[in-house]
Amino acid sequence: MKLNIYLSGEIHTNWRENIMQGCEAEKLDVSFSAPVTDHGASDDCGVAILGAEDKKFWHDNKGAKMNAIRTRKGIEDADVVVVRFGEKYKQWNAAFDAGYAAALGKSIIVIHSDDHQHALKEVDAAALAVCESASQVVDVFKYVLTSQLPS
Amino acid sequence: MKLNIYLSGEIHTNWRENIMQGCEAEKLDVSFSAPVTDHGASDDCGVAILGAEDKKFWHDNKGAKMNAIRTRKGIEDADVVVVRFGEKYKQWNAAFDAGYAAALGKSIIVIHSDDHQHALKEVDAAALAVCESASQVVDVFKYVLTSQLPS
Amino acid sequence: MKLNIYLSGEIHTNWRENIMQGCEAEKLDVSFSAPVTDHGASDDCGVAILGAEDKKFWHDNKGAKMNAIRTRKGIEDADVVVVRFGEKYKQWNAAFDAGYAAALGKSIIVIHSDDHQHALKEVDAAALAVCESASQVVDVFKYVLTSQLPS
Amino acid sequence: MKLNIYLSGEIHTNWRENIMQGCEAEKLDVSFSAPVTDHGASDDCGVAILGAEDKKFWHDNKGAKMNAIRTRKGIEDADVVVVRFGEKYKQWNAAFDAGYAAALGKSIIVIHSDDHQHALKEVDAAALAVCESASQVVDVFKYVLTSQLPS
Amino acid sequence: MKLNIYLSGEIHTNWRENIMQGCEAEKLDVSFSAPVTDHGASDDCGVAILGAEDKKFWHDNKGAKMNAIRTRKGIEDADVVVVRFGEKYKQWNAAFDAGYAAALGKSIIVIHSDDHQHALKEVDAAALAVCESASQVVDVFKYVLTSQLPS
Amino acid sequence: MKLNIYLSGEIHTNWRENIMQGCEAEKLDVSFSAPVTDHGASDDCGVAILGAEDKKFWHDNKGAKMNAIRTRKGIEDADVVVVRFGEKYKQWNAAFDAGYAAALGKSIIVIHSDDHQHALKEVDAAALAVCESASQVVDVFKYVLTSQLPS
Amino acid sequence: MKLNIYLSGEIHTNWRENIMQGCEAEKLDVSFSAPVTDHGASDDCGVAILGAEDKKFWHDNKGAKMNAIRTRKGIEDADVVVVRFGEKYKQWNAAFDAGYAAALGKSIIVIHSDDHQHALKEVDAAALAVCESASQVVDVFKYVLTSQLPS
Amino acid sequence: MKLNIYLSGEIHTNWRENIMQGCEAEKLDVSFSAPVTDHGASDDCGVAILGAEDKKFWHDNKGAKMNAIRTRKGIEDADVVVVRFGEKYKQWNAAFDAGYAAALGKSIIVIHSDDHQHALKEVDAAALAVCESASQVVDVFKYVLTSQLPS
Repeated sequence: MKLNIYLSGEIHTNWRENIMQGCEAEKLDVSFSAPVTDHGASDDCGVAILGAEDKKFWHDNKGAKMNAIRTRKGIEDADVVVVRFGEKYKQWNAAFDAGYAAALGKSIIVIHSDDHQHALKEVDAAALAVCESASQVVDVFKYVLTSQLPS
Repeated sequence: MKLNIYLSGEIHTNWRENIMQGCEAEKLDVSFSAPVTDHGASDDCGVAILGAEDKKFWHDNKGAKMNAIRTRKGIEDADVVVVRFGEKYKQWNAAFDAGYAAALGKSIIVIHSDDHQHALKEVDAAALAVCESASQVVDVFKYVLTSQLPS
Repeated sequence: MKLNIYLSGEIHTNWRENIMQGCEAEKLDVSFSAPVTDHGASDDCGVAILGAEDKKFWHDNKGAKMNAIRTRKGIEDADVVVVRFGEKYKQWNAAFDAGYAAALGKSIIVIHSDDHQHALKEVDAAALAVCESASQVVDVFKYVLTSQLPS
Repeated sequence: MKLNIYLSGEIHTNWRENIMQGCEAEKLDVSFSAPVTDHGASDDCGVAILGAEDKKFWHDNKGAKMNAIRTRKGIEDADVVVVRFGEKYKQWNAAFDAGYAAALGKSIIVIHSDDHQHALKEVDAAALAVCESASQVVDVFKYVLTSQLPS
Repeated sequence: MKLNIYLSGEIHTNWRENIMQGCEAEKLDVSFSAPVTDHGASDDCGVAILGAEDKKFWHDNKGAKMNAIRTRKGIEDADVVVVRFGEKYKQWNAAFDAGYAAALGKSIIVIHSDDHQHALKEVDAAALAVCESASQVVDVFKYVLTSQLPS
Repeated sequence: MKLNIYLSGEIHTNWRENIMQGCEAEKLDVSFSAPVTDHGASDDCGVAILGAEDKKFWHDNKGAKMNAIRTRKGIEDADVVVVRFGEKYKQWNAAFDAGYAAALGKSIIVIHSDDHQHALKEVDAAALAVCESASQVVDVFKYVLTSQLPS
Repeated sequence: MKLNIYLSGEIHTNWRENIMQGCEAEKLDVSFSAPVTDHGASDDCGVAILGAEDKKFWHDNKGAKMNAIRTRKGIEDADVVVVRFGEKYKQWNAAFDAGYAAALGKSIIVIHSDDHQHALKEVDAAALAVCESASQVVDVFKYVLTSQLPS
Repeated sequence: MKLNIYLSGEIHTNWRENIMQGCEAEKLDVSFSAPVTDHGASDDCGVAILGAEDKKFWHDNKGAKMNAIRTRKGIEDADVVVVRFGEKYKQWNAAFDAGYAAALGKSIIVIHSDDHQHALKEVDAAALAVCESASQVVDVFKYVLTSQLPS
């Protein structure tokens, strides 16, 4: 069994690298995809390629649609969608991805601190695992793929 | 043509009533559903019916799942899902509903103030109309059902 | 909102009547379907209509397929599938129905006593509510449809 | 033609190995997946990775959901789901998997002794082959892939 | 529970009327649809409405496509597809309908005499009931809808 | 049998009325939906309701998305999609609707004059009937619903 | 582009080999699957592996279901389903496969002589190409994959 | 992440080569498919392989259906469908492909000059990017796959 994993959500810490390195260290049969995590490029891609806009709304609209080409491909090809909610920002795109994945019947793993527990109860209720750290996510994949629990 | 409409999101103002009354005043052929909007009941339904929990996580988990019976039925039966983002709270459940509706191919209408424009760009990009007020939503439904624009 | 409910599982107690009467007493907007609950007819329907079989396997096979016309119609039309596991028998058909409903994305409510908790953990994990009694199921439907909690 | 096969159900005998070795001996073009068959790990995985629970229900719930990441991946990727019912335990998860596979339109093969025939009639009615032994399952795959019957 | 039934296949005997009258006599909650059973109209509809063709192939092609508007609507709306194979003709359209219905997951009932048993084994294997007479089909519907077996 | 019919395409002649009146004269059990056929309202709906745009692209984009709420509802609910190509304009939205309907498996009827035959060959190839006039479409529906050919 | 092709229908002539050799000679990027074409094995597989039956109906039923494991896998994985109707026998399984493939939206190519044209009009109407010979089918695949017409 | 791309639409300029060469120069992980772009072969394939027709309608019908084997395979396997509208011809097949792709939920990129903006507003509204040149499309793929914007 091999798992295709999409890493959605917060882009300001290195949690994706932690999961990827942890899985590599365990030699797990996984492949990863993720959104563009360069915040500036992600915000400006639409106008940079397709032409400038006077209004912020359309500036953002062109960018969000271009990013959707990658995001939807990533989610639709995934067996598991991991969504991390960080400490800052509204992060509505993370919750949107979680809802999108849930409607497609994907297995969902959520990562968040205890502070966000009540506000994320609907997202957590759609998840198969709720974690607090990237290392727990690695442990989940190790168990799912090898039957081995952390020692 | 008749439209089944699900009204998702913010529960602290009377925007749902405004839309429903506006549609009724225009005699539009619409039906509405919505989540439970009694905040206290929504938070406590799980434990009130199925038994108390010591941990807040499971208290919320039981409630969120029970609410999902209503929420998913509402979204799956809807032709149009209207999602309003208010001024306060994280409102991740609203964004989750929008993602869920998007993956099901529902027509989505978003309502939010200009303050949230950038943070909601991914949600807006999945919408067929982005409004600032409930009365605009009524105008959209009037036009879609009767071909008449606001005078 | 109206809910179509399929009542699957144990056929030796009157739990279906309890739920139906409870919903009627609360004037809830629900409709019900269920498998044939006449044990003898359910076992013999195949051969009674389509001709006798020497082997028990084919006797049962003809009956189980005929019952499937009703069972699958009921589950596929349902918004919510309630599955009750009783104290006796293997009840593999109940678990089969639960799996079938889960793969179709139906909301699932399970009823069982605490004795069966461990053996039903996979079924419970696919459910949106786990109840011990028919009256709790009525309470769930009352809340989902009217926002009212039991007093 | 290559077949992806999911081996669901009883975990206390070596029937999976028998099927896998039999297919290997026949050089059949098959790949296998299965649930975690380490009973202890399967029961405790949730709390071992995600944190302890006081209540048995949540202990089991966390584990069952984590196992579902593997189980659903295995069933959804499979062309054929083989479900074995053993002599002991309730095995409701096996019947749940069979129902889940049936709703997805998977080819189902059931293995059980004659003792369970009547209780499994609904599951058998959803199957394309009902076997009593692992070696029969190997014969089925050999025939399906090579047109050769057992000599 | 109400059943929508499509009556496919042989058009030279009054088996459809027998089933419809039998269900009416039993006051069963059923509705029926069927292909056009006027053989001449069915053959010539395409050219009669859309213009003549020199080649028989296109004469038939236009007719077959026009009939497909009705046939596919009937099958797609049906809960149960009854397919009768008569004594004469190739009746490949009946087998085509059965395959179409099977792929859509419809419940299938086949009617044929014992003479055709071997030639119809693949069709029968996809059916939930194999009958020899229209009255058996009525008995099946009576049982499925009312739990009552023929006396 | 009742048919839900969506009337897509050209909006500058009264072909929709001809079909609707023809079906009414024949007392056929049909219901109709269609896009907004007020050309001006259809072009300006977006900005009239949601606010003006400087760029023609966004003016049109807002309008096209608002119209899509109606168009997609109409096509998705339809049993039959009738698409008429007129003599003027590019009419790419008509061909887009035909492709959309084809991918959803809808029965498609095309109306066009012989002038457009070659340019519409891909659309015609996806249709179950290719007509030159509205009265032929009425004849098709009469035949499909009543088995009667035009006299 | 590579095409996965399922070769359904008549098993008494070497048309499958003709198509496969023709495609190989043209070095086309295709892969083939087909039902078991050993008539005797196909008829007896069920009882040979799963145990004898007294009744011909169940003898055939067990075999037909076992063959369905291969048939459905082949059709579901195929991009194109080629169905050949020969001169003899009822060949209802071929028409069943064609209907099954049509409902799944597969591209269908039919091969039959002119004698069967009228009887196969519904099957032909669901096809994208109607051929009389295996060499035409090879020409179709060559054109579809390489844009080259036969010289 | 790798993208499968279908290049639909205009066949009289070398825009496909420009995109393919641009992607190759950037070493992007993409694969391409496209319709047959030999106009003559595309028009005549049906009759060249399956036999001549007197009527232009059937000549074209046979060809359009044969081309559909390739077109639908290409679109259904694609992650992204790029549709270019050129300066000449009706190009209804391009708009048909866009509608077909939209209904399947594919990411759509449209290429057209500003002249066609108003006439293509419905197609553009279904797209995630609207470009004027092939090089912009290459930039989109480069960004989506590598996060890098054009310098």
